[in-house]
Amino acid sequence: MSLRYALLALLTAGPLTGYDAARRFGGSVGHVWHAPDSQIYPELRRMQADGLIEGEQVRWGPRSTKTRYRITEAGMQSFRSWMSKPVDHAPERDAHHMQAAYLEWADPDEARLILRTHIEYYTAHVALLTAVRDGIAARTDPAIVRRLEARPDSEHEQIVAFKVFSYSGMIARSQSEIEWASTGLELVDRLNDSTRPAT
Amino acid sequence: MSLRYALLALLTAGPLTGYDAARRFGGSVGHVWHAPDSQIYPELRRMQADGLIEGEQVRWGPRSTKTRYRITEAGMQSFRSWMSKPVDHAPERDAHHMQAAYLEWADPDEARLILRTHIEYYTAHVALLTAVRDGIAARTDPAIVRRLEARPDSEHEQIVAFKVFSYSGMIARSQSEIEWASTGLELVDRLNDSTRPAT
Repeated sequence: MSLRYALLALLTAGPLTGYDAARRFGGSVGHVWHAPDSQIYPELRRMQADGLIEGEQVRWGPRSTKTRYRITEAGMQSFRSWMSKPVDHAPERDAHHMQAAYLEWADPDEARLILRTHIEYYTAHVALLTAVRDGIAARTDPAIVRRLEARPDSEHEQIVAFKVFSYSGMIARSQSEIEWASTGLELVDRLNDSTRPAT
Repeated sequence: MSLRYALLALLTAGPLTGYDAARRFGGSVGHVWHAPDSQIYPELRRMQADGLIEGEQVRWGPRSTKTRYRITEAGMQSFRSWMSKPVDHAPERDAHHMQAAYLEWADPDEARLILRTHIEYYTAHVALLTAVRDGIAARTDPAIVRRLEARPDSEHEQIVAFKVFSYSGMIARSQSEIEWASTGLELVDRLNDSTRPAT
C-alpha cells in the first residue's frame, strides 16, 4: 500500500508518465521506498481505476503517444489523509541482524567478511544519501527543483527542510549500522584470541 | 527465504514441534525475523520435503500425537552454508522516512503526532530489546538456556556474545530512530514559529 502513496507523493510535484515515474524510483522517492517497474505500472493502472489519478495521451516521438498521469482531487485527498496519521510500525525482518546473532556458526574469516560487507554497503549508502541530501539542501537536485517550481515560495523552506530531515535520519541509521558492524569485527578478534593459547 | 534459515537456526538448539517453533517467533528469533503462524507451518512442511528437517510423532496429551521436527545433516549443511556468506542487502522500503519526507502536507499537530508515535514505538522497542539482551547476557533467557545446554561449554562465550551483539545493534538503531524523530519535533516547532509573525 505504501507504493500507492509514494506514487501520489511524486505526482504532487506535477504530472508524470509511467516511464517518468519508474525513473524517479531509481532516485528521489526510490531511496525511501524501492519498487521495481513490474509493480509501478500495474499500480498506476489501479490508481487510475480508483480515480486517484487521471491519464491523458501525450505525444511521444514522431508517431506515438504515451499516457501522462496527473493527480486528481480525490488523489490529493487520499494523500493528505495518509499524511495526517501515523503509519503502523511493521515487525522487524532483518536478515543481517538475524545472521549476526548466529555468527558462532561461521568461521572467524567468514564472520569478518560478513561484517566487512555490511560496513562497505552502508558506507556507500551513506555517501549516496549524503550527496542527495546536500543537493536537496542546495536546491540543485532535479526532483526538488521540479517540486519547488510547483509550490508557492512560502512553502519552500519546509519542503526542503522535511526532505533533508528524512535523509538525515536514514544517514544516521546507516552510520549506526557501520558502527555496530565495526564492534562486531572487534568482537570476532577478541573471541578468536581468547580461544587460542597465547604464543 | 530468510524464514527458512530462522527456523533452521531455532532447530540448531534442539527439536521443536511446529507449535513450539511458532511460539519462539513471539520472542527470541521473532525479534529479528517476524513471521506469522500462517507462514511457519507451511515452511516446516516444505523444509521436511526438502530433507532439511525430519518429523517424528510424539505424544501430545492422553490420546493425541504431534510432529516434532529435528534438523538433519542436510539441514545443518544448508544453515552453515547460509552462515558462511554475506546476505544481500535489500533496497530500502521505509514508510516512516517516506512519510517524514513529505511532512509539509501534514498540519503541525499531525506532524507532531506522527513523530511522537515513532518515538513511543521505538522507546518501547528499546525497553523490550534491552530486557531480552540482558537476559541473554545473564544466561537466564529461556531460549539461551536451551541453546547453551545443547552446545559444549567451550562455545558458550561466543554463543552469548554474538546474540548480545545482534541485540545491541538493534537497540542502537532504535535509539537512532528516537533521536531522529526528536530532531523532527524541534524542526516542526521551528518551522511553525518562523511562518508566523512574532507576537
